Formats: sequence, structure tokens, C-alpha cells
Amino acid sequence: MAQPDTARLLIACDDQPGIVAAIAGVLAAHEVNIISLDQHSTDAEGGRFFQRTVIHREGLAAHRPSLEADLAAVAERFGMDWSLHDAAKRKRVAIFVSKYDHCLMELLWRAQRGQLDVDVTMVVSNHPDLADAVRTFGVPFVHIPSAPGAEAKAEMERRQLELLQGNVDLVVLARYMQILTDDFIRDVGAPVINIHHSFLPAFIGANPYARAKERGVKLIGATAHYATADLDEGPIIEQDVTRVTHAESAAELQNRGADVERLVLARAVQWHAEDRVIVHGRSTVIL
Amino acid sequence: MAQPDTARLLIACDDQPGIVAAIAGVLAAHEVNIISLDQHSTDAEGGRFFQRTVIHREGLAAHRPSLEADLAAVAERFGMDWSLHDAAKRKRVAIFVSKYDHCLMELLWRAQRGQLDVDVTMVVSNHPDLADAVRTFGVPFVHIPSAPGAEAKAEMERRQLELLQGNVDLVVLARYMQILTDDFIRDVGAPVINIHHSFLPAFIGANPYARAKERGVKLIGATAHYATADLDEGPIIEQDVTRVTHAESAAELQNRGADVERLVLARAVQWHAEDRVIVHGRSTVIL
Amino acid sequence: MAQPDTARLLIACDDQPGIVAAIAGVLAAHEVNIISLDQHSTDAEGGRFFQRTVIHREGLAAHRPSLEADLAAVAERFGMDWSLHDAAKRKRVAIFVSKYDHCLMELLWRAQRGQLDVDVTMVVSNHPDLADAVRTFGVPFVHIPSAPGAEAKAEMERRQLELLQGNVDLVVLARYMQILTDDFIRDVGAPVINIHHSFLPAFIGANPYARAKERGVKLIGATAHYATADLDEGPIIEQDVTRVTHAESAAELQNRGADVERLVLARAVQWHAEDRVIVHGRSTVIL
Amino acid sequence: MAQPDTARLLIACDDQPGIVAAIAGVLAAHEVNIISLDQHSTDAEGGRFFQRTVIHREGLAAHRPSLEADLAAVAERFGMDWSLHDAAKRKRVAIFVSKYDHCLMELLWRAQRGQLDVDVTMVVSNHPDLADAVRTFGVPFVHIPSAPGAEAKAEMERRQLELLQGNVDLVVLARYMQILTDDFIRDVGAPVINIHHSFLPAFIGANPYARAKERGVKLIGATAHYATADLDEGPIIEQDVTRVTHAESAAELQNRGADVERLVLARAVQWHAEDRVIVHGRSTVIL
Repeated sequence: MAQPDTARLLIACDDQPGIVAAIAGVLAAHEVNIISLDQHSTDAEGGRFFQRTVIHREGLAAHRPSLEADLAAVAERFGMDWSLHDAAKRKRVAIFVSKYDHCLMELLWRAQRGQLDVDVTMVVSNHPDLADAVRTFGVPFVHIPSAPGAEAKAEMERRQLELLQGNVDLVVLARYMQILTDDFIRDVGAPVINIHHSFLPAFIGANPYARAKERGVKLIGATAHYATADLDEGPIIEQDVTRVTHAESAAELQNRGADVERLVLARAVQWHAEDRVIVHGRSTVIL
Repeated sequence: MAQPDTARLLIACDDQPGIVAAIAGVLAAHEVNIISLDQHSTDAEGGRFFQRTVIHREGLAAHRPSLEADLAAVAERFGMDWSLHDAAKRKRVAIFVSKYDHCLMELLWRAQRGQLDVDVTMVVSNHPDLADAVRTFGVPFVHIPSAPGAEAKAEMERRQLELLQGNVDLVVLARYMQILTDDFIRDVGAPVINIHHSFLPAFIGANPYARAKERGVKLIGATAHYATADLDEGPIIEQDVTRVTHAESAAELQNRGADVERLVLARAVQWHAEDRVIVHGRSTVIL
Repeated sequence: MAQPDTARLLIACDDQPGIVAAIAGVLAAHEVNIISLDQHSTDAEGGRFFQRTVIHREGLAAHRPSLEADLAAVAERFGMDWSLHDAAKRKRVAIFVSKYDHCLMELLWRAQRGQLDVDVTMVVSNHPDLADAVRTFGVPFVHIPSAPGAEAKAEMERRQLELLQGNVDLVVLARYMQILTDDFIRDVGAPVINIHHSFLPAFIGANPYARAKERGVKLIGATAHYATADLDEGPIIEQDVTRVTHAESAAELQNRGADVERLVLARAVQWHAEDRVIVHGRSTVIL
Repeated sequence: MAQPDTARLLIACDDQPGIVAAIAGVLAAHEVNIISLDQHSTDAEGGRFFQRTVIHREGLAAHRPSLEADLAAVAERFGMDWSLHDAAKRKRVAIFVSKYDHCLMELLWRAQRGQLDVDVTMVVSNHPDLADAVRTFGVPFVHIPSAPGAEAKAEMERRQLELLQGNVDLVVLARYMQILTDDFIRDVGAPVINIHHSFLPAFIGANPYARAKERGVKLIGATAHYATADLDEGPIIEQDVTRVTHAESAAELQNRGADVERLVLARAVQWHAEDRVIVHGRSTVIL
């Protein structure tokens, strides 16, 4: 999966004629090849335009400043938000966990097998239980205990932020059972992906499996989303479900759900790692 | 699908030793063959027990009174709710619609093809639009218009109840866009199945597709449930979903959802027709 | 779904730098807006390149000749196959059936509801059974009986070709139980889509449901594909499956499969209608 | 998941009246409670009858001989095959692997988490690569190398049989890339479950992912089945699929398929562990 001389160009702007030609023209002028190009307009008339272009050019690194200068000029003309991501530079990820290990193990395992294009640089937990399991993968495990009270909480987050700021490109909450404060999400300096153990917006909040059992639902789901101040309301990246029956207990629903959770979270993290996910209001565009 | 001499025995009681042996003993004593037997206990210890037994015996109709007498004695002993349903006697169904035709057509079509074991005896609508489509199937179409105001509503329901009481075994709301009153549901004398155009309990209430689009969900669902006073809260019979992307508009989500709705509703009605669905609190057991 | 002034540009060529820029440049020069653009390269290095671009311009019809001249020049330079399809011009479709009606009805019904962007101009059958059902939709039904022997077969296909040649843009085999000859497929002058009642390449040939039951498979599928001389080997457009259990008889598997068939065929025809399907060797690219 | 005093009674016999009553009568007479009862008849008229009954009784172990004597008498009368499995006695499993680790890891991980009711007593491989990964779980890893030639093969199987005979209740081939001989399967003295990396019977044999890519299929599947002399033709226990597109390379299809394989294999092993799978000819009944 090493991709030297390859980068991903993301742009977002108001929809208007000539965008594709302008960008493609700059790329052609710089002898940059388009590996793939995906786009989305929120509306046939007007609306917002998004494009992800994977590009390749021998010696891209050396050439990048002059390419960026020309892209900046086009971006200025069209009022574009844009960014250019080096495909060879894997994102540094911190995983937050408590005691449930299934999502954590799935991510560590895929990263080790080369099926998840990230570097897991640390695992942070409010419990010590999973230290050995994590260190087996050669990944540092940091135990920052939680304690009751607002002051303890603030202290815990201070220690977490010290660890994270500048050191990670992504935080993944892999069934981390603590609420993050708005301040933390604002200050951490990296996007935060959470896995919620239900098909949102059904069963927002606590104990979704018990409530699903009580309600007699026929499908159990999981949702990966960006964490925002309003925890279960952030933009959804991926969801999936599995069929269940009345014969399964709440505990069995939890096991069935755990299998969905780990696959949904792994897909969401991989798509984020490949710069495929663009946030648009409360929703996402996956390119 | 004609099943002479076949019946379905449903029982529900508190779980206790000896239930299966007692019922099977009565059946064997009456030379009744067990075609299939499904059961469910809500809890390994204690809890509620449900059983559906499909039975067959030459000349069952003539023999039925003496069989019922012995079953009643067992039921008395174990405190069972029980019922015996003649498999050859198809349930009489009234379908309620407004203007959307996809669920209605699916049901009529399946009934005509022999894939839905019910007799659709009437279609009732508050709009005249679907009269021709329905009558093509040889099914009576009754237009009972809605009008503003509580009195008009009461009058409409009075006319509906006149039509239905004693004449139908099941009412299916196939995207019927009027709220039924609690009085109607209590007085109609038959269970009512509704199709809700979302994966309940997500998007309870109006405009679920627009809200799903706005929320950026990745799956669109539908839920068939028994209607109760609290419309979207009745026991769920069946649910399903289909995968969607950001590229689909709210109108396209609606079309995608319509395909899920009609299959989910058809399955729910067929299961009800086969006496497979037992209500247990706010949920169902499907045997 | 009326789309005046809108067209779909399909191109296919060997992958090479500058394609996107060249096409986008022509479009921009003609003040043509790109509504959507999808592309696929079969290989990151070399390989084959495919692109579908939905374009819009006020007064496109009048402007089309000059646009086409410039596109032809670019196509010449890059060695492109290309075509430009007017989105407002719906494809004329002939549906072939025998006695099974489920796929036919699904297509007629969707076309009538505006959910299938084709004009069904005729239904051709070797049996008279479905004449009334078809004519209810205002669609001509033509009965061309089959008879034993090569000569009768040749005569039947002669009559079919007379009906079809020049009159249709697509032929859909909606569970048509006759084998088409290679000559027919070559001479009919339009692509032919077939629905096969199994998850190809499993259960190629006759009686797939009985064989699936005998083999104890846990999923039942259907496959829509372009018909070629080797009937079950043409490029696959769409496939889907549904879960089944040992408790379902071969007849029930057939009913379950019928539901999959009609949805799979409807999706395949709609994608073809939208010029989304490009054949590439034995497979397809869906853009 | 400890289930003291619980057992699973499996019976199979020609369908005939009175079976359920006779078994339930014996159980009731022994004050044995029925926790769950599932049955299947292959045909409404005649055919073969299968039943799985989960039973519970205080002090079952001490009571078992007298219960078995009465069951044997009933079995004699009805010509039943029957077996009684102690739910507290977990099956001893040997896992065979080569170099792919995804199915192996899934099984080890689930067993460790208590989500797979087996004891993995050894892992056997023809390659040394996965020794460390296996021993981390506290499971013995035995390297029995393969070598060219029939004699080496016979020697390898001799060593494997020495290890296995009497020591295991189940052998799982978790992407083991060697063909087992008929002699091995006959002599090993335990059922063998294999995971095949395609939706059988499609793509029987080698390189299914490459062939699926070349054929342009839209779904990728996996099949868990009992191994028989004809390797890819044994009775299917479980199958599943996942949706893929033209944009995915054969290598990506392989990764997507690996996720299906490990879930399908885990479900098949768990069902076997719970004595839910009954072989019937070339198919299975899952109770």
C-alpha cells in the first residue's frame, strides 16, 4: 500500500461552471496524472460541490510547491476550500478504550496486517485491563485513570491533551465509556471518530441493546460518526445492521452488535485514512 | 397452498415443566400428527412460554370439538391462553390507503398470484385516485373521504367501522396517511398492521426520508408493526433496510424506501396470515 | 425525471495523462456545465479508462453539432470510443416473457409509476396467458407462439426480428423460457438483458432452485446480465441474494428468489436506461 | 456460558406420528425441563424428522443413566438415531492453518473472549509463521511441514493423525492450503469443518477471487462446510456475501472476502459447538 509520488486533492466550493476543467487543466500543465476522480454536487442547480482527486507524478515532492501555487490561484478564483494530502504519509492515530476490547483489537489487528492505512501511535485508557493485549502489538498503552468529580475529569483531559496535541492526526473512540467535554474536542487538534452501538438516530444514549430488546427490533446496528459537542449527533460516516430474532437475549444482541461495531468502525477509520470523508453540515460525503 | 385438515395451535403461558408433554400427549391421543412445532421461552428460568404447533388429522373438522375439549382441560391446568386456527380458512383483510400505491399493489399482486394467504375483501381510501387500479384485481374499492374537523373525522371512522366490523379479520394500513383514533383501534375488532417508512425507533413521526437525508444516514429502512394507540410504538413485526449514499436525493431515498416498505409489509402480513406472530408486551415473537 | 438540455457523455480509451483535462476543457469552452462525472481505470498503471459525464447546457440541442465536432477531435487524439446520449430521450424497450409474470409486472409497474426511465413499447411472448395483464398498462402484447423444430424456431425469430429491428433500443428477457440463437442476438440490433434465477456462476443451467435446495445453500440469488451467445456467461450487471433456511421447500425458494429477481432486473434495466453500464470484456463497469 | 445440568438431545428418524409426545413424555416422567425444542420435517408427508431439545434437570449427571435407558427404549420403538450432549462439556478443537491468519485469529480471539464455546487445544500448521501469534493465546502450536511427494504427504498425515486421534472432537480448516486425503478424513475420528473462499457452488477450486474479478461478480462470498472426500462438495453449514464493485481489485476483493470468511467460519463453528447442525444427505439442518 506504499504510494510514493501520490497525493489526494480535496476541494469544496459553491457549485459553478468550469471547476473540473480548471483543476484538470492545472494538473495537466504540471504533468500530473489523475488516478481517480470522484465528485458530488449537493444539488443539480447551485448547491455545494466536492471533489476528491488522486494524483500521481514522478518526483511529486520536489514539484509540490509550484503545483500548490497554481492550485492556490485556481482555488482563489473559485472560492474553494482545498487540501493536498500525501498518500505515503500515514495518519497517526490514538485509540481511546475502556474495557471492551473488540473494536480496539479489530483496529490493531488490521493495522498489523496492513489492512488499515494508519499508524496506531498510542492507546489511551481509563482502565489498565487491556495493557498487555495492546503491548503485544508493539503499541504504547497509556493508563490515565478516571475519577469522580469535575476537577478529576478536567485533570484527566489535561493529561490526555498533553499526550495528544501535535502527536496525532486522528483520535478513535473504540467503545470509550467516558464523555468527552466540548473543550477537549475543540482543543485536541484532530478529528475524533466514535463508534456508537446502535443504528443512530435510534436508541441515542445509554443501554441501546437492552432498549432494542425491550422494543423487539428485528435488526441491530452500529454507527461510526465524528464526535462533536453533542456526542451522538455528529456527522455519520458509516452504519450497518445485522438481523436478529426474538430468540436472542439482550446479551446475545450485544455480542451480535459487537461484530457489527468492529467492522463499521474499521471501515470508517479506513475511509478517513484515505481522505475519502468530507463533512457537509450534519452529514458526510464519502468520495 | 390449500391445507385441508390442517390447523395451527397457539399457546402462551407461564413457563413450567411438562407443557410440551401435556400438549403432545393430547395430540397423540387424538391421532393428530405434528407437522411443525416452534416454541420460545422468554427466559431460561421462569418467564413466558409460547408455542405454535401445526397439526394435521384426516377429518379434523368433525373431530375438532372433542380435541378442543381435551386441549381446554390442559389449558386450564397450565393457565394457558390458547387458540386453534383452521389453516384452510384464509383471513379476510381490508387494506387502507391514501394516494401512495406501492404497498397496496404489492399486496394485491401477491394475493392474486397466490403468494399471500389472505382474501383481500375491500380497499378503503380517503382519496378516489386508486379505484381503477384496485378494481382491476376484482377487489371492491370504497372511497370514504376525509374532511377537516373532529366531527368529520368521527363520521369518517363511523362509516369505516360499519364496513369493517364483523367483516374483516385484519386491517392493513398500506401507507394510509390519516391518524386512527384510539376508539377506532379499540372498536374495529381486528388487529391493525401499519407500515412505517423508517427503521423505527429512528425517525418516529413525519417526513422520515427528508430527515434521514438531512442526518446523512447510510441505510434506509421500513418497519411493519401492529398499530396501537401510540401509533409508532406498537409491537414490531418486521424491519429491513437498504444501503444508500450521499449521492441520493431525498426523493430517491423515498423511492428506495418504497421498495423496502412493500417487501417488509408483505412479509409481515404473510406471517400474520400464517398465525406466526404472537404479541408479547411491546415486542413480538415470530414462530 | 424530465431532463431537457441534459446529456450523458460516455468515453472509453486506453489510460493516459490528460484525458480529464481535455474533455473538461472542451466542455468548459462550450459553456457546458458538468452535473456529475464518474470514472474508472482498470489499473493504476496503464489499463483501460472509462468516464461517464452528465452535462447540461441551455439550448443543448441546437448547440450539439459544434460540441460534437470538438469532442470528436479530442476523441481522435486519445483514441477514444465515445457516445453522447440525450437524457430526455427514453429508450424504447421490448420485454420478452413466457408465463412467469413477476419480472414483467415489476417493470410495467415501475414504468407506469415513473420509477423506470424507459418506454415499454411492446411485450412479446410465446404464450398468450399474460395478454390481459399487459394490455391493462396500455402496452401492446404480441403473441408469437413457439413450436417444435428448428424451422419453427427460425420462423419465430424471423417474426420477432421484424417486430424489433429499428423499433427498440433494448430487449429485456423477463424470465423468457426460450433459448435465443446467436443469429438473433447478432441481428436484433439492440442490447439484450436477461435475468437468471441464480447467483451466477453457481447453478448455471436449468432448475437452479431445485439444485440449490438439494445442495443446501443458505442464500438464494439472482443475476441480471447482458445476453451473449453463451447465455449464462454474458457480462453481469447486477446480482443480489436473500437468506434462506433448510425449512424452506424448493417451491418456497422459488418464491423467495422471484422477489430477488424482480428487484435485480429492475435495477439493471434502470442503470442501463441511465447509460451507467459499460461492458468491459466479460465484466461491466457501473458508473 | 457455563450450563451445568443442561444437555442437548438430538434425534433423527423417519417421520411418523407420536414422536414429540413420546420424547416429551419420557422427559416429563424424569422431571426434566425442556429449555428449547426445535424440529424439522423434510416433507409434510413422510420424509425425515429431526429434533434438537435442550433439557435441564438438577443433578442431571447422576440421573443420566436412567434417563438414557428410557430414551433408548423410545428410540428403539421409532427407529431413531439419537445422542445426548452434555452442554457443560466443551468440544476440543484443533485448528489447521497455513499462512493466512484471519480465520485463525478470529477463532482464537472469540474463544478467548468467551464468544465461542470450544476449547482450542492445538493449532497445526505446515508453516512456522504463525507460531508466536498462536502461543500468545496460550494455545500449543505444532509445526508439521509439508513436502513434495506422496510419501511425504502420507508421513505428514500420519503425524497429524497421531496428534489428533482421541484428542479432539472437531478439526477446523481455517484456510489450510493442503488437500486432505480421503483416508485422513475417514481416520481422524472427528468432523472436519472447512472455510471455502467463495459462495459455493460458484468458483469451486483455486483462485476464486481472481476468477470472481474476471467474471465481474457484484457479490463476494464465503462458505463453511463439512469436509468430505470431495472437498468443495461437503454439506454447507453457513454462507454469506458482501457487495463489491468494479472499482475493487482482485486484491481488495480478497480482503473483503477475508472479512466474510472469518465471520462465516466463526458462526459455523459456534453452531457446531452448540450441537445445532445435523447433516442430511448433502445438506444440513440447523436447529
